[in-house]
Amino acid sequence: MSRNQRVSPAVIRRLPRYYRYLGALLEEGCVRVSSRSLAERMRLTASQIRQDFNCFGGFGQQGYGYNVEILHGEIGRILGLEQDRPLVLIGAGNLGRAFASHMLFPAAGFHLAGVFDNDPERIGSKLAGHLVLDVADLGEFCLAHRVVAAALCVPDEVAPPLVGCLDRSGVRAVWNLTTYDIAADYPNMLVENVHLTDSLMSLCYLLNARSKGGDTPNELG
Amino acid sequence: MSRNQRVSPAVIRRLPRYYRYLGALLEEGCVRVSSRSLAERMRLTASQIRQDFNCFGGFGQQGYGYNVEILHGEIGRILGLEQDRPLVLIGAGNLGRAFASHMLFPAAGFHLAGVFDNDPERIGSKLAGHLVLDVADLGEFCLAHRVVAAALCVPDEVAPPLVGCLDRSGVRAVWNLTTYDIAADYPNMLVENVHLTDSLMSLCYLLNARSKGGDTPNELG
Repeated sequence: MSRNQRVSPAVIRRLPRYYRYLGALLEEGCVRVSSRSLAERMRLTASQIRQDFNCFGGFGQQGYGYNVEILHGEIGRILGLEQDRPLVLIGAGNLGRAFASHMLFPAAGFHLAGVFDNDPERIGSKLAGHLVLDVADLGEFCLAHRVVAAALCVPDEVAPPLVGCLDRSGVRAVWNLTTYDIAADYPNMLVENVHLTDSLMSLCYLLNARSKGGDTPNELG
Repeated sequence: MSRNQRVSPAVIRRLPRYYRYLGALLEEGCVRVSSRSLAERMRLTASQIRQDFNCFGGFGQQGYGYNVEILHGEIGRILGLEQDRPLVLIGAGNLGRAFASHMLFPAAGFHLAGVFDNDPERIGSKLAGHLVLDVADLGEFCLAHRVVAAALCVPDEVAPPLVGCLDRSGVRAVWNLTTYDIAADYPNMLVENVHLTDSLMSLCYLLNARSKGGDTPNELG
């Protein structure tokens, strides 16, 4: 495997999608899949899939197809999903509550180590089996529990000092639900921005482009 | 403007980001911006920005820079944000409540026309100024209010019949928070999938790749 080559963001973005479709095939009892039939199902091209897989050494013989279970496992390992990295959730509002209750953190390589908020009415309450902790204790908690990642579900204006605290406390990755541009201030922090308004704007673009008769994809993939 | 050329999904994905950064520049009172300084701020390359803008005719003279206000307006129009398309929100759980309360739908070209749920305890309650309506009345409501888009924030297993209902009721676009693969069953529906678990897996990949000493981007952009 050519692990030292830099993998493009677009390929990284597709890895979880491959993992998801392969998981569905596994559940259906499918043993082997060709790049062509995987491509059809995922609405990609077979050549795109083979190119993507070549970034990781290829995973198997082209004519013969891929072993679904092995491929699923390999991609899971490349994603690092077998890890169980401690993550804190900051913000126990509606969005934070939704994540604490419904996100399958272990399926994404993490476990929820703690939930934090700054609202006295929320602190001390229970959320998905977790006691909501005071955000004033965030830094100490992260150091003590060797927390490596944080899900940031707070109002934009409180995000900068919180990221500062995370940075000083050994946290190396932020799943960012705010619009704060973390990477501009912390170039070494790993950041995944979930820009929900951007996503909704993309849908608006598709509607707008189609209403004007433009040739547009049905989804952005 | 070469509006009839198909714009790639990657470019479409960057449009809301341009719009956001240009909005911030506008707020700072910035009048003109070069592709180079916009690139620095957005952590793209100037040539990438010029290529992207060329998909829409270019927007101005290279050496002289872009007029921020005009460019912001143009990109907003390309996204269709000046429209005010009726959207329904389906699912008034934590995620739906977060969106109803905090999403700036008008900023993304939509207005929230109605909120639906199937839980008798939620139906009839108020959510962000909206009476939560019975999902049994969804189809009739969408037809009567010419609803064009839906935000789907429901458990995966109830998604398929809901999308069937939306499809029969003239809804043309779904902002999909479930894992149901809408495009596989409704090839004409415009779909924007928000796969939160995929997004968290991408962050896991970055952590994993970096812990193995791999050269990896700090964010996927």
